[in-house]
Amino acid sequence: MAALHEPLFRGHEWEYVKECIDTGWVSTAGKFVDRFETMLVDYTGISHASAVVNGTAALHVCLMLAGIRQNDEVICQPLTFAATCAAIAYCGGLPHFVDVSPTTLGLCPDALETRLNETAEIVDGVCQNRLTRRRIGAVVCMHTYGHAVELDRLAALCARWHLPLIEDAAESLGSFYQGRHTGHWGVLSAVSFNGNKIVTTGGGGAVLTNDPYLARQAKHLTTTAKLPHRWEFEHDRVGYNYRLPNLNAALGCAQLEQLPNYVAAKRTLAQRYAEAFRDVANVSFFTEPSGCCSNYWLNVILLDHPDRSARDAILTATNDAGLMTRPAWQLMHRLAPYALAPHGDLKVAESLYDRLINIPSSVTLGESHG
Amino acid sequence: MAALHEPLFRGHEWEYVKECIDTGWVSTAGKFVDRFETMLVDYTGISHASAVVNGTAALHVCLMLAGIRQNDEVICQPLTFAATCAAIAYCGGLPHFVDVSPTTLGLCPDALETRLNETAEIVDGVCQNRLTRRRIGAVVCMHTYGHAVELDRLAALCARWHLPLIEDAAESLGSFYQGRHTGHWGVLSAVSFNGNKIVTTGGGGAVLTNDPYLARQAKHLTTTAKLPHRWEFEHDRVGYNYRLPNLNAALGCAQLEQLPNYVAAKRTLAQRYAEAFRDVANVSFFTEPSGCCSNYWLNVILLDHPDRSARDAILTATNDAGLMTRPAWQLMHRLAPYALAPHGDLKVAESLYDRLINIPSSVTLGESHG
Repeated sequence: MAALHEPLFRGHEWEYVKECIDTGWVSTAGKFVDRFETMLVDYTGISHASAVVNGTAALHVCLMLAGIRQNDEVICQPLTFAATCAAIAYCGGLPHFVDVSPTTLGLCPDALETRLNETAEIVDGVCQNRLTRRRIGAVVCMHTYGHAVELDRLAALCARWHLPLIEDAAESLGSFYQGRHTGHWGVLSAVSFNGNKIVTTGGGGAVLTNDPYLARQAKHLTTTAKLPHRWEFEHDRVGYNYRLPNLNAALGCAQLEQLPNYVAAKRTLAQRYAEAFRDVANVSFFTEPSGCCSNYWLNVILLDHPDRSARDAILTATNDAGLMTRPAWQLMHRLAPYALAPHGDLKVAESLYDRLINIPSSVTLGESHG
Repeated sequence: MAALHEPLFRGHEWEYVKECIDTGWVSTAGKFVDRFETMLVDYTGISHASAVVNGTAALHVCLMLAGIRQNDEVICQPLTFAATCAAIAYCGGLPHFVDVSPTTLGLCPDALETRLNETAEIVDGVCQNRLTRRRIGAVVCMHTYGHAVELDRLAALCARWHLPLIEDAAESLGSFYQGRHTGHWGVLSAVSFNGNKIVTTGGGGAVLTNDPYLARQAKHLTTTAKLPHRWEFEHDRVGYNYRLPNLNAALGCAQLEQLPNYVAAKRTLAQRYAEAFRDVANVSFFTEPSGCCSNYWLNVILLDHPDRSARDAILTATNDAGLMTRPAWQLMHRLAPYALAPHGDLKVAESLYDRLINIPSSVTLGESHG
């Protein structure tokens, strides 16, 4: 079976993990957690990183720190993994869906501007939905399959509408926009190190921010909100146990050492796919949008025309043949828990759902025919 | 430094963890997760186990599945780790504190009965607080430092008051009550495998239940509520990413193989402590309550009389000397987030807080002078 994306361990993974076991430091304290966070800062250029237990937890923390509370609406794209919306729901908020761009597959600045003009207003400095009277608390953009959205335009729009921008960068570690790593434009951003990501900690995530106050809050909130004391157990708020175990961070340190090589291999694979599909009729290979140097986390082919049965025929044939392929996630506004969520016109996302197929994208595939 | 409780790896930990890395199965699917769950079922005799990312997540799942929702009160003890109350808060509930028993250190059946008679009534089959008019949604008892509470009496009281009993068994893996493993009396129970527990997965937990419907719900809810399909990503509710990575489960399988030996060693250590303290004036060693065969997770000494300065003098002297000791957790009703929570008389917990000291309890200490 050719996997969609399988992890690759051939650096110091075993050495670091063994060190944890040998020293007994496997749990929620230990040097690999600190080293992992430092390595993330060094690689992304974002000044603070808090390692957490997974990408969903990272998103939850971003939304809590952005101040999302009961009955807030949070603008996000319908084409995303369920965690984006789940994290909004954990805060008591409701997603408000805005369409994606056909050139990035992520939140579309034009659609966002149109939607805000149509439905939002600023009341006493706060962005509100004119129809529902609910506060709009934030915008979450997601870098779909690793490709960066138009961050400069989205950030400018958010600033104009008094909305904090959060980057769901779960899939975009190793992806840059206008020369800077994704995660730089948002007030906060969330990364994932799940087993299917470009590098993995087994399960893991991180909250990235350039804001030192938010970084301190992220660390405090995710480590049970315990106050420092030689022996007393005092907690000054309802905290979360979102700590990444040292065992998983050890794996992550070894993986981050490989990240530049992995990005290079995945870009090589994408180039080869692009060439292979160049002259194929009715299908195109999706290439990185302008301004973005992508990690090509999951490669995408698109049918020229929406055709669910053609899509399913390809999915059936490839999976039957041991080549793992997948459609896009079911669009969020079509899931039962978000059936009542407000949304604008979502025709780009709806078309993509009928046209999009992810094809095998493991790092090794980019190396194997060098 | 003599730790309070350090993990011990000398079985198949390396072998199983290396197998994960060698095969690439480190993440949220893999055979060690299934094996870990089966081993928990075999050891505890409770029919279903869902491995999750940590004990806090396990508690959260127990409370969600018990139906706790916005503005419910949940009865629990003030002498516990902050996670018990945090999990209640995640559901929108509020703790309602009832005192602990001096013989178990956990929730006191007499205090619970008094408190329910004083403040609760059954309205249309639902237990309500007469004063606050809020629903009382559940009772959570915690097996403090591994010692079982009086589960038969608590379960009978809960049944009479239409209250689901949840066991916070985070500390009591390996502890039995009336011949059955803790976790058997609650509708649901939560176990922790944090690094300081009797066995560890780095970070991890499990939801245990004898109810097959709740077990299916626990698995579904903790694995993003995804519906099974060959390739579609459909989620029928707001799910959680509480999956234990295979890497951590592998460590856990090796640890569970050692559990009976670890319990035996810890019981030997407790016996030795009991003898050592037998003739010491003004201090007693806490021994397991009647009906309980305890794992003696953290050993406890108690000053005969509440005296915070005597307690702190011992804490200072021992920690200065490299012998790690700790007081009880700050009582939950004294923490800022729960300052407004309802509570009855808590004089036993308050006395214990001034008298209780945890002393070094690692497995190796029970073996070293056999």
